[in-house]
Amino acid sequence: MKVGVIMGSKSDLPVMQDAIDILKSFDITVEVDIVSAHRTPDKLFDYGQNAHTRGFSVIIAGAGGAAHLPGMIASLSPLPVIGVPVKSSNSIDGWDSVLSILQMPGGVPVATVALNGAKNAGILAAQIIGSHNTAVLDKLIAYKEELKQKVHESAKDLI
Amino acid sequence: MKVGVIMGSKSDLPVMQDAIDILKSFDITVEVDIVSAHRTPDKLFDYGQNAHTRGFSVIIAGAGGAAHLPGMIASLSPLPVIGVPVKSSNSIDGWDSVLSILQMPGGVPVATVALNGAKNAGILAAQIIGSHNTAVLDKLIAYKEELKQKVHESAKDLI
Amino acid sequence: MKVGVIMGSKSDLPVMQDAIDILKSFDITVEVDIVSAHRTPDKLFDYGQNAHTRGFSVIIAGAGGAAHLPGMIASLSPLPVIGVPVKSSNSIDGWDSVLSILQMPGGVPVATVALNGAKNAGILAAQIIGSHNTAVLDKLIAYKEELKQKVHESAKDLI
Amino acid sequence: MKVGVIMGSKSDLPVMQDAIDILKSFDITVEVDIVSAHRTPDKLFDYGQNAHTRGFSVIIAGAGGAAHLPGMIASLSPLPVIGVPVKSSNSIDGWDSVLSILQMPGGVPVATVALNGAKNAGILAAQIIGSHNTAVLDKLIAYKEELKQKVHESAKDLI
Amino acid sequence: MKVGVIMGSKSDLPVMQDAIDILKSFDITVEVDIVSAHRTPDKLFDYGQNAHTRGFSVIIAGAGGAAHLPGMIASLSPLPVIGVPVKSSNSIDGWDSVLSILQMPGGVPVATVALNGAKNAGILAAQIIGSHNTAVLDKLIAYKEELKQKVHESAKDLI
Amino acid sequence: MKVGVIMGSKSDLPVMQDAIDILKSFDITVEVDIVSAHRTPDKLFDYGQNAHTRGFSVIIAGAGGAAHLPGMIASLSPLPVIGVPVKSSNSIDGWDSVLSILQMPGGVPVATVALNGAKNAGILAAQIIGSHNTAVLDKLIAYKEELKQKVHESAKDLI
Amino acid sequence: MKVGVIMGSKSDLPVMQDAIDILKSFDITVEVDIVSAHRTPDKLFDYGQNAHTRGFSVIIAGAGGAAHLPGMIASLSPLPVIGVPVKSSNSIDGWDSVLSILQMPGGVPVATVALNGAKNAGILAAQIIGSHNTAVLDKLIAYKEELKQKVHESAKDLI
Amino acid sequence: MKVGVIMGSKSDLPVMQDAIDILKSFDITVEVDIVSAHRTPDKLFDYGQNAHTRGFSVIIAGAGGAAHLPGMIASLSPLPVIGVPVKSSNSIDGWDSVLSILQMPGGVPVATVALNGAKNAGILAAQIIGSHNTAVLDKLIAYKEELKQKVHESAKDLI
Repeated sequence: MKVGVIMGSKSDLPVMQDAIDILKSFDITVEVDIVSAHRTPDKLFDYGQNAHTRGFSVIIAGAGGAAHLPGMIASLSPLPVIGVPVKSSNSIDGWDSVLSILQMPGGVPVATVALNGAKNAGILAAQIIGSHNTAVLDKLIAYKEELKQKVHESAKDLI
Repeated sequence: MKVGVIMGSKSDLPVMQDAIDILKSFDITVEVDIVSAHRTPDKLFDYGQNAHTRGFSVIIAGAGGAAHLPGMIASLSPLPVIGVPVKSSNSIDGWDSVLSILQMPGGVPVATVALNGAKNAGILAAQIIGSHNTAVLDKLIAYKEELKQKVHESAKDLI
Repeated sequence: MKVGVIMGSKSDLPVMQDAIDILKSFDITVEVDIVSAHRTPDKLFDYGQNAHTRGFSVIIAGAGGAAHLPGMIASLSPLPVIGVPVKSSNSIDGWDSVLSILQMPGGVPVATVALNGAKNAGILAAQIIGSHNTAVLDKLIAYKEELKQKVHESAKDLI
Repeated sequence: MKVGVIMGSKSDLPVMQDAIDILKSFDITVEVDIVSAHRTPDKLFDYGQNAHTRGFSVIIAGAGGAAHLPGMIASLSPLPVIGVPVKSSNSIDGWDSVLSILQMPGGVPVATVALNGAKNAGILAAQIIGSHNTAVLDKLIAYKEELKQKVHESAKDLI
Repeated sequence: MKVGVIMGSKSDLPVMQDAIDILKSFDITVEVDIVSAHRTPDKLFDYGQNAHTRGFSVIIAGAGGAAHLPGMIASLSPLPVIGVPVKSSNSIDGWDSVLSILQMPGGVPVATVALNGAKNAGILAAQIIGSHNTAVLDKLIAYKEELKQKVHESAKDLI
Repeated sequence: MKVGVIMGSKSDLPVMQDAIDILKSFDITVEVDIVSAHRTPDKLFDYGQNAHTRGFSVIIAGAGGAAHLPGMIASLSPLPVIGVPVKSSNSIDGWDSVLSILQMPGGVPVATVALNGAKNAGILAAQIIGSHNTAVLDKLIAYKEELKQKVHESAKDLI
Repeated sequence: MKVGVIMGSKSDLPVMQDAIDILKSFDITVEVDIVSAHRTPDKLFDYGQNAHTRGFSVIIAGAGGAAHLPGMIASLSPLPVIGVPVKSSNSIDGWDSVLSILQMPGGVPVATVALNGAKNAGILAAQIIGSHNTAVLDKLIAYKEELKQKVHESAKDLI
Repeated sequence: MKVGVIMGSKSDLPVMQDAIDILKSFDITVEVDIVSAHRTPDKLFDYGQNAHTRGFSVIIAGAGGAAHLPGMIASLSPLPVIGVPVKSSNSIDGWDSVLSILQMPGGVPVATVALNGAKNAGILAAQIIGSHNTAVLDKLIAYKEELKQKVHESAKDLI
């Protein structure tokens, strides 16, 4: 029950921190690393080929622009890979990150979440674990209940 | 170890069949249904609220246009939900399906795959099961090996 | 002669306030609430199924990103539903909200207005009421006259 | 209880016929005409300025490309105007029709439906009438029930 | 030799001022007015129908969002109409203004310039006059020479 | 009173023919040529630099993809240049032609018409001539009248 | 003086053949192979890491959808890499291939050509060789001359 | 071993400086100039036609909006031309620059890099030189090593 959270550059950390935080709130172990598809291809290969034997259940990979990290990890690993399109500085409104993560060819899926949606990547990783772990599933049910209560509160404030 | 495959309309079946076929090839039980967020909201609610107690591990939901089915199932169920954007006839080049599935708000993720990428939705569901089931994981490793061999074959043909 | 104005999150209120204000200026009763398709699906169902028996003539629903609130209310209610695409913080330039509200499938319309166009949603609700209420229709005719005069004033200032 | 259905060119009729048919199925009187904002501006003015005194409750206007018909009718009439973006031959994938109908300035709304969504325009017009006419409202409730039954049928066929 | 510069709202003036300034620098008479297609349709009609008998050679019309002003003037007037897409506050990145001005149907052209390109609208109007007025043509040739010299200067500064 | 119609490739002729035909119907002399910005830069230079001394009043230039012909002619000539974005085979839905013709920098306008809008380019050229030639202006007024009659005819057929 | 032409799938060959043909017409040796970033990551690594010691001057890589092949080769090799975005069947109008090849992060360029622009990739590879090989440079100058003559011929046919 | 770096306007220099800096860091001679396709067409012609006889190996050309500079230089010169799309102030999110540089017709390639990607243009020019100059190739290999080390450092900081 360990999730790997990797990103292409340290500048992606402010976005990716949301994934780390929400996973920790579900008491799921997180291992964070920087793996650049374009600048550290050896590390990419090593990471992708060995993730499933190193105890990870899911990999969350965030990257911006021509974002190849999630897809390349998915190419190398049989584990579910969640891709977070990061809206980086020279991105064309985020379309580049979204499309280069989402539009994977048949055979090699990446579970893509919304632009900068690292929090949802963390929840999705928890759901994947929760699909066979009732303790985590119960936490997710409680989390959903909490979201609901917050909306009810904010609706009361309105009046 | 059962995957629910649902779609908004029977006209989505030719696309969604790929998910069913690949899951069967991994010996994973599939239950197929038509659930329309916009035309059968009661069924949607019932399906979403009870999926996790009916033995499903993952839900795959495909829909086109303003595609609300995957997101609404994700709203109702604590299970991982995979969304398949379907390029339907009056879709604006598929952008509507992609964005209305992908861009979910914080708290409620949908694992989105490529436009018409039902095959990848099936593989992703298998990977989610494989993350805690070594028999399925081994099949995924074998599947990756097979993909590789096919490319090597096609490269030989080239010469 | 009552209009329901709902929104997916309290953060949508600054945009949606324009709808409330313009309706009040036409002396139309407004009932405001927060209903999240993704976080309070029960409330969504309850709201949508009962709106037409609770005295509403029209529902205005605003939401951002993968905006499912307007379409789901339209799925549940036989009343006219006006959708306001809200440009939220992580939206992809508003395209996601626009397309996930506009591109509804045949059978379940949402009357979509411009991005952040809550004021126009309010006017449209008044026009719907005005189509069978001459007092409101007269106010709309006066409002149009007022818009015209303001342009004529600003043209005079120009010279 | 009369709906005006107008379009910019006779070539829009195959798309707009869906609005006419569905309205007739609800026993609502429909008056069809061709009014081109760009080629018959006099007729446009006459139509827009007099629609509310000629017994119309709602106007449905369809046009393609730089589609100015719905917005100009909304400029001239205090009635609710429903705009149907038509995907015409030299349209840029329909984006031009959608944006030139949807993005109306504050003060002058057009209730926009999906690209080529004339059927939904018809249903929306019926809902506007139904908001103060219980006979039509009941037909809309029955129509929704019918949609639901069709989905249930198609789901049975699946098995 | 008089050019009409009109705009849909006074808020367009900061953009449209560039057209006025450049025309004045070519000693061409400019008449500025605010004409809103959506709020002052009568004035629009009057302006469009009479422009060619009031001594105008060209009309420059700027508008944002669902920008109908340039196209409606072109519908009413036999004169050349230059359209300036203005990037207004709630515009979707300017695409709405650009497409609703550019994509006019066969028979009714609008000479469209770049987003916020009012300066070029002014130069184009001068070129239209210059096509049959050698004094203006000579000024345009001199203007082009000036542009060239400025680039040469800036290139010298570089070193 | 002569209009130059040029295009980047003979494959653009089926689109550009509309400009030639409509100009001839207004009894305006047309000179057609193929001038490729990318394959015949010398001819481009020669054409652009001398057009205004060769008796042309207006240049219509059509091109597809990264369409540089209209802008480069506008760079070289003081005459009004009308650009026709052609949707060529490998174009990205026509966006490339539209944007590379429309978005000219300050100082060098191109009067851009709709995608494949060669007919409108011809009419615009006639309007430019008509702005100082009452015979042509009268033909344009008659042409507008004709467009109107055709719509009225088609409306009659409808009933 | 050897160019490597690789592609992600044999289905890309009809597009990529243009690169091979034009290179052969310049008497440049071409070595063709299929290397899939997502299905044969080992081969990708091997190819990328060794290309510069195997006598290649340039690598041309074509791929569609979330196209990672050109960028990953550029990550591994110090040679110039030319990327050809291929418009594959489930591509979203080619935008995915274009953006996932073009928008490479600082440090790792891919020389991107037009959608399906394999011919231009071949010419660019020849130009890279021609930048230090006068025999190839002369062929390129002759090729440009030939392009020009063809346009002149087609212009003659026009009359 | 000399690279020409040109740009359409001095306002492009802050972006283009990255190309100059990285080339200097590889000890490659750079000659910088301002050449505007639209304002200094003579200089453009002179530059393009003579670059290959003036000792340049590669030309880097940056421009924004309807960016014709890179393509016109490629039209005139047999040398490899690298195009840098610059996101200028009135650009439509950079799409105009990207498409008008990238989508060149068959026969005349431009090696396009990412939006504002001048640094990568510089590296690509170095790679072109490095393809036949082992000293530069070695520097590129060292540069890649350096990029890798920086990522490894930043990964250490993370923990």
